[in-house]
Amino acid sequence: MKEESIVVLGVDPGFGITGFGVIRRGGNTVSVCDYGFLKLKPTDSLSCRVGVFYSFFQEKIKTHGVTCVSLETSFLGKNAQTFLKLGFLRGVLYLLADQNNLKIIEFSPMEIKQAITGFGGAGKDQVSFMIQRLFPRIIFQGEIKYKDVTDALAIGLCGAWSK
Amino acid sequence: MKEESIVVLGVDPGFGITGFGVIRRGGNTVSVCDYGFLKLKPTDSLSCRVGVFYSFFQEKIKTHGVTCVSLETSFLGKNAQTFLKLGFLRGVLYLLADQNNLKIIEFSPMEIKQAITGFGGAGKDQVSFMIQRLFPRIIFQGEIKYKDVTDALAIGLCGAWSK
Repeated sequence: MKEESIVVLGVDPGFGITGFGVIRRGGNTVSVCDYGFLKLKPTDSLSCRVGVFYSFFQEKIKTHGVTCVSLETSFLGKNAQTFLKLGFLRGVLYLLADQNNLKIIEFSPMEIKQAITGFGGAGKDQVSFMIQRLFPRIIFQGEIKYKDVTDALAIGLCGAWSK
Repeated sequence: MKEESIVVLGVDPGFGITGFGVIRRGGNTVSVCDYGFLKLKPTDSLSCRVGVFYSFFQEKIKTHGVTCVSLETSFLGKNAQTFLKLGFLRGVLYLLADQNNLKIIEFSPMEIKQAITGFGGAGKDQVSFMIQRLFPRIIFQGEIKYKDVTDALAIGLCGAWSK
């Protein structure tokens, strides 16, 4: 029986920069289909930014035939209101998962670091370094916020590797 | 010039019970068009519950021609993960506001209590009592979680009274 390929959308959401990576796994090969970031305009209203976020990922899901969304579990930081608003974006991803019949998986920051670098206490730099090792064809140009993108790719890769 | 009527959807979101009230204001009269609650099934997946929440309020917005969504500002309670998930539902309401071109207003718990009872430190019972005074035709039947509903009506009423 031929194994179906799975397409994972890894997202590292934020109201400033949201990194994303789309990873396809067919059998034993894993490849990157798309990656980049979404920058929301701070001058737009909150509801407008939520709407832009929804449309952006709706389009990515359709274009790449995404089958699974992968997220990093978020923990309360210093600012409770920022944390709540992060929930807005995560809620939109859960909604998109429901509307497009996608699986949704969450990984803790430690699980992601462990899976990518072999060490659960690794720093962001190390994750970034490993992602660029694993996918040497990825080229970061100009002012791209590459750590948001490599983080999202790491999250997506965990989804692609799981089960 | 004839004043346009505004239709406010007040929502008190929760993953257990979400109370809602739809209030129409035309000139000096304020009336209740709809009220009740949505109970999400704890056995459903998180994305499914978010999807049900979206569809439920999408339908309410279309049916009543809602022009404005009114919410209570939420503050971090004891459980950070509950607070984050509350953000999911609020995010869905912000998305619906964007998709349907609605205004969205938030009031602090104190503003709501002040507006409804004249006292910012009032209890939930007092808010509930005043709502039933203002709208004596509202009848709560059976196992309805009436305080979630009266809270939502209070939030909606603040929206209808504002500006």
